[in-house]
Amino acid sequence: MGRVATAVDRQFDMLLEIPDDARRKLYEAMRHAAIGGGKRLRPLLVMATARLFNVDDSCALRAATAVEALHVYSLIHDDLPCMDDDELRRGKPTTHVAFGEAAAVLAGDALHAIAFELLADERTHHDPFVRAEMTACLARAAGPSGMAGGQMMDLVAEKSTFDLPTVTRLQQLKTGALIAACVEIGAILGRVNSEGRTSLRGYAHDLGLAFQIADDILDVEGDEEKAGKALHKDADAGKETFLSLMGLERAKDQAQMLVDQAKSHLKAYGAEADLLRAIAEYTIARDR
Amino acid sequence: MGRVATAVDRQFDMLLEIPDDARRKLYEAMRHAAIGGGKRLRPLLVMATARLFNVDDSCALRAATAVEALHVYSLIHDDLPCMDDDELRRGKPTTHVAFGEAAAVLAGDALHAIAFELLADERTHHDPFVRAEMTACLARAAGPSGMAGGQMMDLVAEKSTFDLPTVTRLQQLKTGALIAACVEIGAILGRVNSEGRTSLRGYAHDLGLAFQIADDILDVEGDEEKAGKALHKDADAGKETFLSLMGLERAKDQAQMLVDQAKSHLKAYGAEADLLRAIAEYTIARDR
Repeated sequence: MGRVATAVDRQFDMLLEIPDDARRKLYEAMRHAAIGGGKRLRPLLVMATARLFNVDDSCALRAATAVEALHVYSLIHDDLPCMDDDELRRGKPTTHVAFGEAAAVLAGDALHAIAFELLADERTHHDPFVRAEMTACLARAAGPSGMAGGQMMDLVAEKSTFDLPTVTRLQQLKTGALIAACVEIGAILGRVNSEGRTSLRGYAHDLGLAFQIADDILDVEGDEEKAGKALHKDADAGKETFLSLMGLERAKDQAQMLVDQAKSHLKAYGAEADLLRAIAEYTIARDR
Repeated sequence: MGRVATAVDRQFDMLLEIPDDARRKLYEAMRHAAIGGGKRLRPLLVMATARLFNVDDSCALRAATAVEALHVYSLIHDDLPCMDDDELRRGKPTTHVAFGEAAAVLAGDALHAIAFELLADERTHHDPFVRAEMTACLARAAGPSGMAGGQMMDLVAEKSTFDLPTVTRLQQLKTGALIAACVEIGAILGRVNSEGRTSLRGYAHDLGLAFQIADDILDVEGDEEKAGKALHKDADAGKETFLSLMGLERAKDQAQMLVDQAKSHLKAYGAEADLLRAIAEYTIARDR
C-alpha cells in the first residue's frame, strides 16, 4: 500500500511542477493538498482492480492519480469555510487556511479538470473507447448524481432529521459513488464489459458502505492526532449518522458483515484478488 | 443566434430536472445559473464551427451545452465573495446571493462534472476517439494551463503591475483558452485532424483577444443595465487591462484589427463560414 502512495506522490510531483509565473500560488496550493498524506485508498482500489486483469501498472497509476486528483479537489472544497469549515486535513492546515479561500477554490477546480485531462490522455490508455468510458464513469460519480449531490445532502442533513435509508443514500452518493468508480475504472482498464463487472460492483458497493460506517465510528472513537483531522464533528453539528441511528455495537457488526459480504463478491477470483480482500479488511481496521 | 440560446436552455432544462430529494437546492442553484441569459457565445462557436463540417446539429448541441456548462461553472465560482465578489450576473443575483455560498460552490462543481459527462457520452458522438479528444481538449482549457490558471493570474493582478505581454497571457488563459476550445471541439466533431485545424486556431486566437479587449472597453464605457453585471470593476481594483495599457483609441483599433485578422483565417471557407465571420464582428459590437 505504501508503494502506491509513493507512486501517486511522484505522479503529482511531476504533474504539478511549479511554473515561473503568476500561477505559482495555484500550483503551490494544489501540491499542498495533493502531495503527502492521505490513505490513498482510491488509487489503491484502481490499481488492485486493474491487476486482476493484468493491466500495465503505469497505465493504472495514471488512472489512479486521476481519481485521487478528483478526491483531493473534493476535500479542498468540502473543507472551505462555507462548507464544513475545517482547519486540519491529513495532519496539515487545510488549503484555504494555508493559501486563502480564493486559491483553495481554484486549486480544487484545477485538480477537478486535471482528473479528466489524465483520463482522456492517450498515455493513460491507447484505446479511445477505454478513455471515454473511464471519463464518463468518473464524471457521473463526481456530479449531482454522485459526490456533489451527496455533499449537498450532507449540508441539508445538519438542518434535517434523516432516517437510515436517507443517510445510506447520502453516503452512497457522497463517498460510495467515487469508491465504486475506482473499481469500475480498474475493470474498464482491463477491458471488462459492463456485465462482467457485476460482482466487482457488489464488492465496491459493500466496501463503500463499510468505509462510511467505519468513518462514523472513527468520528466518535478515533484519535484526532492519528486521524489528522478534527473529529466529533457529526454529533456537534446534530447530524444523523450510521452510528446515531444504529448504535455503536450494531454499527460495528454491520461494518464487519459488509466487509464479509464484499469479499464474498470476489469468490470467482483467486489469489490475484487478495489485495482487494485486504483493502476490505483495512477499511474497518484503520485508525485514520 | 437566438435559436442556439433557446436550444441550450432546453438542453439544460432536460439535464437539470429537479429530483424529489435533499439535492433539490443544488439543482435549483444550477438551473438559476445555467438557464436563461448570457450571450451563449461559446455554444454558438461550437455550433458554427461544427456546421463547417456538416456535423449533425443534435451532436453539436450536446457538445455546445457541455462547453456552456463549464463556462457557467466558472462564472459561479468567479463571482464568489472570496473571488471577484459580484452580486449581479446576467441581470440576476449571482448564485451565492440567491442560494448561499455552499450551494454555489457545489453547483459550480456539479456543472464542471456535467460538462465532461456530456462530452464522454456516446449520444454526443458515436466515435470514442472523438469523445476522448473533446474531453482532453476541454480539460486542458479548463485546468491550470487554461481558465483556472488565468483566474489565479487575475487575482494576483490586483496586487501587481502587469505589463502588456503579461495581461495578454492572463487573458489568453482566462478566456482565450475556452474560446479556442469551442472552435477545436467543433472541428473535432467534424473529424478534422490537428493539422487541418491550424487556420481555425488562428481565428479562435484572434477572436479571443478581440473579445477580451471589447470586454475591457465595455467595463469602462458600458451600461450596467444592458451588461447585466457590475462594471468599472477593473479600475476600482487597480488592475491593469488592455485599456489602461493601450488607451481607448488604440484598444478599439486593436480590437478591429484582430477581428479582421480572425476573419482572414477563414478565407479557405466560403459562405458556410459566414456565421463564424458574423460572430467575430459581433464580438466587438456587443453591448453586454
